[in-house]
Amino acid sequence: MSRVVTGVRAVQEALRSRGTQIQALYIAEDARRALSQLADEAARGGVRVETKSPGELDALAEGHKHQGVVAITGEFEYADFDQLLAAEPRLLLALDQVTDPHNFGAIVRSAVAFGVDGILTLKKRAAPVTPVVVRASAGATEHARIAKVTNLARTLADLAKRDFQVVGLDAEGEHEIGQLPPAPFGRVLVVGAEGKGLRRLVRERCTHLARIPMGGPVASLNASVAAAIALYATLRTDG
Amino acid sequence: MSRVVTGVRAVQEALRSRGTQIQALYIAEDARRALSQLADEAARGGVRVETKSPGELDALAEGHKHQGVVAITGEFEYADFDQLLAAEPRLLLALDQVTDPHNFGAIVRSAVAFGVDGILTLKKRAAPVTPVVVRASAGATEHARIAKVTNLARTLADLAKRDFQVVGLDAEGEHEIGQLPPAPFGRVLVVGAEGKGLRRLVRERCTHLARIPMGGPVASLNASVAAAIALYATLRTDG
Repeated sequence: MSRVVTGVRAVQEALRSRGTQIQALYIAEDARRALSQLADEAARGGVRVETKSPGELDALAEGHKHQGVVAITGEFEYADFDQLLAAEPRLLLALDQVTDPHNFGAIVRSAVAFGVDGILTLKKRAAPVTPVVVRASAGATEHARIAKVTNLARTLADLAKRDFQVVGLDAEGEHEIGQLPPAPFGRVLVVGAEGKGLRRLVRERCTHLARIPMGGPVASLNASVAAAIALYATLRTDG
Repeated sequence: MSRVVTGVRAVQEALRSRGTQIQALYIAEDARRALSQLADEAARGGVRVETKSPGELDALAEGHKHQGVVAITGEFEYADFDQLLAAEPRLLLALDQVTDPHNFGAIVRSAVAFGVDGILTLKKRAAPVTPVVVRASAGATEHARIAKVTNLARTLADLAKRDFQVVGLDAEGEHEIGQLPPAPFGRVLVVGAEGKGLRRLVRERCTHLARIPMGGPVASLNASVAAAIALYATLRTDG
């Protein structure tokens, strides 16, 4: 069931229904004035309103008429890992203990923009898909297939057995991220938490370790920036 | 004059001095316990304390002994645009109306990591280097040369006259960002604000417009992510 509610009437109903939890509310720039009453009502109900360009709203509305307003409601529905695999994914993104919801949301946004087929995150010691994550992703969570796994090292070992290229992002990696060998059977990019990197057991399950070449005096990137560059670089080079 | 203060004694003095404004305070992970008193004192004074890895702290301390603690104090000193130019920069980053301090700080962080020679921002309608920016940059502001310009379109025209390649990041750009022609006389990357992109006059002064190829259902990247990918991609391809 989609969590996306579009149009003035439907969003108003969602706002007024006690049973419906609104996680994010987006209004088109050019409809701000016309919808100021709706926005006020949302604000009084403690729902944060964000402004989007008409194009961004179209994408969020998934093809439905939206009249300048889109809401995201209810609990996030995670994907099932086995179903993800059954769809023969070409590119997966795995997150090792990314606990910061802003980083998690930002990563989901980039992953969706670059068309990854699925995102793996941990059942424990990871940020769940909360309203903060939804907003940090600019609503991209609604286009993402996110599966929770119990033991990431074991999941990566399984993927390696299926001939996936398992690429851990690591400052000491022997490969440049833009110069990986082709991955004809699929690739999973593994990104760790900011400052901590990959846990030892997770790193050991990677078939390749890759670094982002930099060269400045302070060679440290934000986790979501590093993930986005890795996605960009591997998509560019992959056959 | 450097704004970086290192070592327990000096940071304590800065904390206790009425005249000194502390913009950011970093403590090494492995020194957290030993420095808990200092951290408490800072917190009581309303100064936010952040934890860094020892390596990150070494970089922030600019070679000085730090005993696990580094503070950034006082007003940010902007670079002078003419002096920046005199140093024969190879890669500049220009920001058109980036007003969000978190995005600005995140962009500075990536720019420093990728070794840009200078960052141009606007005198008006742009975020100044506030403590929020310093923190969002993870302290990278202290390694950045940031110059404010009055009229970005005119500055870009000047750079084009000096044979700079002036590359505007634009979703409709005719070039892929990773496939620009070489820029033997230097390059300036021009990035607009999230959602708004480049202003018309600024876009018209660009010698090249380049896009980040994506392909997902929601083709929208965070401004700081887009800037970081552009830096990565142009550094990779440049001769």
